[in-house]
Amino acid sequence: MRIRVVAPVVATPLVQMVFEQYRAAARPDTEMSLATLDKGPPSIESRYDEALAVPDVIAKVARAELDGMDAVIIDCMGDPGLEAAREKVSIPVIGPAETSMHIAAMLAHRFSVVTVLDTLIPAFDHHALKTGLTSRMASVRTVGIPVLELHDHSRLLEALLNQSVRAVTDDGAHLLILGCTGMAGMVHGLVVGLQRHGITDVPVIDPTVLAVKMAEALVDLQLVHSKRTYPLPPEKEIRGY
Amino acid sequence: MRIRVVAPVVATPLVQMVFEQYRAAARPDTEMSLATLDKGPPSIESRYDEALAVPDVIAKVARAELDGMDAVIIDCMGDPGLEAAREKVSIPVIGPAETSMHIAAMLAHRFSVVTVLDTLIPAFDHHALKTGLTSRMASVRTVGIPVLELHDHSRLLEALLNQSVRAVTDDGAHLLILGCTGMAGMVHGLVVGLQRHGITDVPVIDPTVLAVKMAEALVDLQLVHSKRTYPLPPEKEIRGY
Amino acid sequence: MRIRVVAPVVATPLVQMVFEQYRAAARPDTEMSLATLDKGPPSIESRYDEALAVPDVIAKVARAELDGMDAVIIDCMGDPGLEAAREKVSIPVIGPAETSMHIAAMLAHRFSVVTVLDTLIPAFDHHALKTGLTSRMASVRTVGIPVLELHDHSRLLEALLNQSVRAVTDDGAHLLILGCTGMAGMVHGLVVGLQRHGITDVPVIDPTVLAVKMAEALVDLQLVHSKRTYPLPPEKEIRGY
Amino acid sequence: MRIRVVAPVVATPLVQMVFEQYRAAARPDTEMSLATLDKGPPSIESRYDEALAVPDVIAKVARAELDGMDAVIIDCMGDPGLEAAREKVSIPVIGPAETSMHIAAMLAHRFSVVTVLDTLIPAFDHHALKTGLTSRMASVRTVGIPVLELHDHSRLLEALLNQSVRAVTDDGAHLLILGCTGMAGMVHGLVVGLQRHGITDVPVIDPTVLAVKMAEALVDLQLVHSKRTYPLPPEKEIRGY
Amino acid sequence: MRIRVVAPVVATPLVQMVFEQYRAAARPDTEMSLATLDKGPPSIESRYDEALAVPDVIAKVARAELDGMDAVIIDCMGDPGLEAAREKVSIPVIGPAETSMHIAAMLAHRFSVVTVLDTLIPAFDHHALKTGLTSRMASVRTVGIPVLELHDHSRLLEALLNQSVRAVTDDGAHLLILGCTGMAGMVHGLVVGLQRHGITDVPVIDPTVLAVKMAEALVDLQLVHSKRTYPLPPEKEIRGY
Amino acid sequence: MRIRVVAPVVATPLVQMVFEQYRAAARPDTEMSLATLDKGPPSIESRYDEALAVPDVIAKVARAELDGMDAVIIDCMGDPGLEAAREKVSIPVIGPAETSMHIAAMLAHRFSVVTVLDTLIPAFDHHALKTGLTSRMASVRTVGIPVLELHDHSRLLEALLNQSVRAVTDDGAHLLILGCTGMAGMVHGLVVGLQRHGITDVPVIDPTVLAVKMAEALVDLQLVHSKRTYPLPPEKEIRGY
Repeated sequence: MRIRVVAPVVATPLVQMVFEQYRAAARPDTEMSLATLDKGPPSIESRYDEALAVPDVIAKVARAELDGMDAVIIDCMGDPGLEAAREKVSIPVIGPAETSMHIAAMLAHRFSVVTVLDTLIPAFDHHALKTGLTSRMASVRTVGIPVLELHDHSRLLEALLNQSVRAVTDDGAHLLILGCTGMAGMVHGLVVGLQRHGITDVPVIDPTVLAVKMAEALVDLQLVHSKRTYPLPPEKEIRGY
Repeated sequence: MRIRVVAPVVATPLVQMVFEQYRAAARPDTEMSLATLDKGPPSIESRYDEALAVPDVIAKVARAELDGMDAVIIDCMGDPGLEAAREKVSIPVIGPAETSMHIAAMLAHRFSVVTVLDTLIPAFDHHALKTGLTSRMASVRTVGIPVLELHDHSRLLEALLNQSVRAVTDDGAHLLILGCTGMAGMVHGLVVGLQRHGITDVPVIDPTVLAVKMAEALVDLQLVHSKRTYPLPPEKEIRGY
Repeated sequence: MRIRVVAPVVATPLVQMVFEQYRAAARPDTEMSLATLDKGPPSIESRYDEALAVPDVIAKVARAELDGMDAVIIDCMGDPGLEAAREKVSIPVIGPAETSMHIAAMLAHRFSVVTVLDTLIPAFDHHALKTGLTSRMASVRTVGIPVLELHDHSRLLEALLNQSVRAVTDDGAHLLILGCTGMAGMVHGLVVGLQRHGITDVPVIDPTVLAVKMAEALVDLQLVHSKRTYPLPPEKEIRGY
Repeated sequence: MRIRVVAPVVATPLVQMVFEQYRAAARPDTEMSLATLDKGPPSIESRYDEALAVPDVIAKVARAELDGMDAVIIDCMGDPGLEAAREKVSIPVIGPAETSMHIAAMLAHRFSVVTVLDTLIPAFDHHALKTGLTSRMASVRTVGIPVLELHDHSRLLEALLNQSVRAVTDDGAHLLILGCTGMAGMVHGLVVGLQRHGITDVPVIDPTVLAVKMAEALVDLQLVHSKRTYPLPPEKEIRGY
Repeated sequence: MRIRVVAPVVATPLVQMVFEQYRAAARPDTEMSLATLDKGPPSIESRYDEALAVPDVIAKVARAELDGMDAVIIDCMGDPGLEAAREKVSIPVIGPAETSMHIAAMLAHRFSVVTVLDTLIPAFDHHALKTGLTSRMASVRTVGIPVLELHDHSRLLEALLNQSVRAVTDDGAHLLILGCTGMAGMVHGLVVGLQRHGITDVPVIDPTVLAVKMAEALVDLQLVHSKRTYPLPPEKEIRGY
Repeated sequence: MRIRVVAPVVATPLVQMVFEQYRAAARPDTEMSLATLDKGPPSIESRYDEALAVPDVIAKVARAELDGMDAVIIDCMGDPGLEAAREKVSIPVIGPAETSMHIAAMLAHRFSVVTVLDTLIPAFDHHALKTGLTSRMASVRTVGIPVLELHDHSRLLEALLNQSVRAVTDDGAHLLILGCTGMAGMVHGLVVGLQRHGITDVPVIDPTVLAVKMAEALVDLQLVHSKRTYPLPPEKEIRGY
């Protein structure tokens, strides 16, 4: 099977690093490829960034279908363009945030999200509202590190661990979700750190690898989003696109 | 005061017609102007249309602030780009859908929305969820007329009236919201039609004129959206914009 | 246009002071008048106070309609008698609490109310429940000053500021609502105080001036509450009234 | 034990008839008494009626405490004055609507209320919202008979049965609540009628007799409403009362 | 009337002690009896314990009906087997948790539960969700004492008081529910302790005695759970039972 | 990898037939095995059936862990014993109902469940409540065929198709879930049937094959339910087990 990761940003070293995590999670017979944007921001840290990424995200998702991909993953915890892209294609389009929250709700009573910046908190509250999981989200915590500085893994790990311990201890989280796909690959270090704090019963979801498994599962099942919910947009000329 | 209407579509006769409704609703001392998109669709009938309209909507809203406008109205019941645009500027940005639903909830126990096409129903359910008004929305009904055919007013009125009567009688609506700004100006005909069916106690909200009044009120009050909710996006180069 | 403010209390100096705020907020062509109760309490600090105010509130609202008023504002954040009064008349009746919460929800992700006494917290929780905005209300905080001592503005401002800072910092409020119409006129001082604490991105709603703008807007729009939700009460003799 | 029924209306033959139902439900050692209003409406069919009844309801509840009553029942499915009256006294005050809905939710997956007039539907939706039981209320149906015509038992029974059958068959009700205390005594006839329609598994709650049992239970348990929720109102002069 | 308490555990001294509380709460003409399990755990501290208790709980409830009991109380705040048992019989089956929460919601704006162990918190959140009372439950607090050590009343009282004060002061509880039937009889000591902390306006519900009163009330009213919600299970051979 | 299907019933031909569906869905390198109960009912059609199945379900799940299984699927849309079993083991335990609903919510705006008997409707409402997806479930419809008669595939298909068309047309479902694992294998026929009715845009979830994919995904991800939500039950002697 062939899965395309669409990063909603222009090419950056971080995107490539994160893509290696996606690739490592795939089954041997799953072929992974990466698309980055021609037009868009270098990182997504606001709804404004998101809005300017979306048109090319949709184009890249449509391209993936034309290229014969079996599924697409949008590489961002804002799930930018998820719904519009699903209208445009008939292959599964996976949003890591949506997927992580639903799976978290299956595995634990309450979960927390640890993301990058305070400005993203309303977006996660919105994800929770849309999925129906508001009462299951114990908290949204932030490490206070901009996306493009996430490559400093020791700084990131320390901040992640600090916030994760507080999510468990103060907010009652029973499971943690990494709140930015740029945090891919941090699960092992975080779990070890939590153990040093005596926390051994709290799973951590890395949305990137989860998204790969969800994509593989849907393709195996020949399940796609409902085209009654996401109908093909009416044909019309759209100026400038 | 100066209010800019940003139509999230390229210039069409319908947009101009609707703008006359906005202008007619303004106070004598309110100067209304219209901006249409350079890049974008001729009408909004899907989340795909919306996504491709948003980047230029934001640009036009930002332009409005530079032009010294006091407030902006996004001329579409999808409120496309509302949140991203609010991040970008510090003048009020009005979404007609959001505004109509909140005011409807103040005036009636339950309201119905009568919009154009079935494919928009999830979007209105989403508006209701975000505003917290799910239990107050009696139904979303549709006239089955594409946006660009709305200029046929006698066909539109007949369909609107038919669906409105059913919203009141079958769904228990106590107030009606016109579900597309392209229906601007239909309130009088609809109210008269409802009266012929013996329905004299159900107000109808025209979101265009309501949006003008809300914009004027916020400007008078010097009230703007919270910049803690909608902070200025971090400065960064966005390729292609 | 003519707007009547109905204070749900007997005449007091505070009521007159607050009325000046209402008057100052009106457009030049809006004529404001004040009615106080013949029968009722000097302040509203309990549901008991509210209950004993309501019959004369209704009478004063009905009187306003007979006097040719275009709209009525009930001058209290308990919105006492709002629904019963709307049944009785066919002009808009504005509740400052209901209005403030809906507008706050349009402008910010989460808002807090800062009111007078702890005993009013359940009432604001109830407002939030009725409007559907429970998840949008970050907190209800109180200054611990009885209504009739609110005229001591320096004491009030200090307590307001203290609670407002905590609402923003500890509770995550992105917008503040003054929780008693007796606090009218405190916005400027509070905003300046917040700035000294480094908080410059949190709007403050003064429900009195907002109520005037909402009344003007509804009158301009010829929009009234649904008489299907608030039908004229059946004619009957009511002993003692 | 001594229980006072406070009818929120002036004395009418119907009130006396209903009181006999309350009395018949009491334990042999429970002494029942009835108070009617000196000031107020002859029936409660609107929020306006309710608002004008409340001041004297509170007075009668306060009187009951002075008279040494152990508990009070407010004889109306609007529960008029329930919260204000609880502030004033330290003996249990029972609202038949609130009580019926909570007990219904314990006994059945979904319940319907069959009440008198369409104008009361928002009030029952509001009860459901306040109790948290919105999703448990299958429907509110109405017999279309004003309160003061409820004494025509054969007409009432036919309408009740008709609506009850539809609540069960069309709306999925598993339990029925009589939606007006003026329907007291109709359970037997209704159950027999339902059996003739083959419906033998749907309990019917008569709120009057249930209220008596709840009052007796609370008195036995020495349980009263929380005075932290319903604190004694601050002492103040209230003009006209 | 005859009420059977079914303890979902094998016979222990604690069960007998708690039964004395049930018996003391009954009316003189109510005959109380106790059944303990032949198969099951000595205490309920997990969903696993609960699951293994349930088959014999159902058998004991069915036995109670055959023995001519008028109602059954399941003696545990997990309400184990409540729904399955109700299917099997046509006499009222009372769950102390469900009953306490509904009555608490009638008496106070917000309540807290103080139970034994942290592992039970999700179960109480689930009770709140099922009853619809999530927003009314201020907190679930725990004394950290296993069920079988509850007989040490001075240790229990100290921990209960400590957590109760925090529930009121920090969490905003207006009423407290003892969160384990093994805490029966602690109300008096707890109320006295709260008074020493200046808390005199917060009622405490002992679910055991409340359950007795609810059982008596339902029997008096001839009200039973809806057999449409809890239909008799289809006849079938169940191997091993 | 090795996955054990635990059927919560004693061995029947239907169970074996359904197991073939599970096996067919597995990846080539996934080894599937089946366990049926020694003690329990032949089918699950009530909460009573479920309660009597659960103890041996837990035993069989515990046995699966001892046998070195990587994950367990409980073969029933009631998810019987899911939570108790998760406490007992540290391998993933999959509930087909919980899984189907979360995945359905990711793929469509609203879904309907088509199950066997009306008596199961409250159970599905309860699943929806627990998952937070109440507003996403358009309806629960039933074919009126007991579990043990499901092997009559032509009768089943006709009834399934009939109810599915109504779910889509009348209830607004955008996706369908087969509401009993005994319906495994019916997707193809149902999809073809829907096409004959002109419905080509509504996916159908077969919970059995979905459960296999979810199990495989979790094992691949080394993700297990949170042991903070499902802690190992305290060690204690449980009589009779």
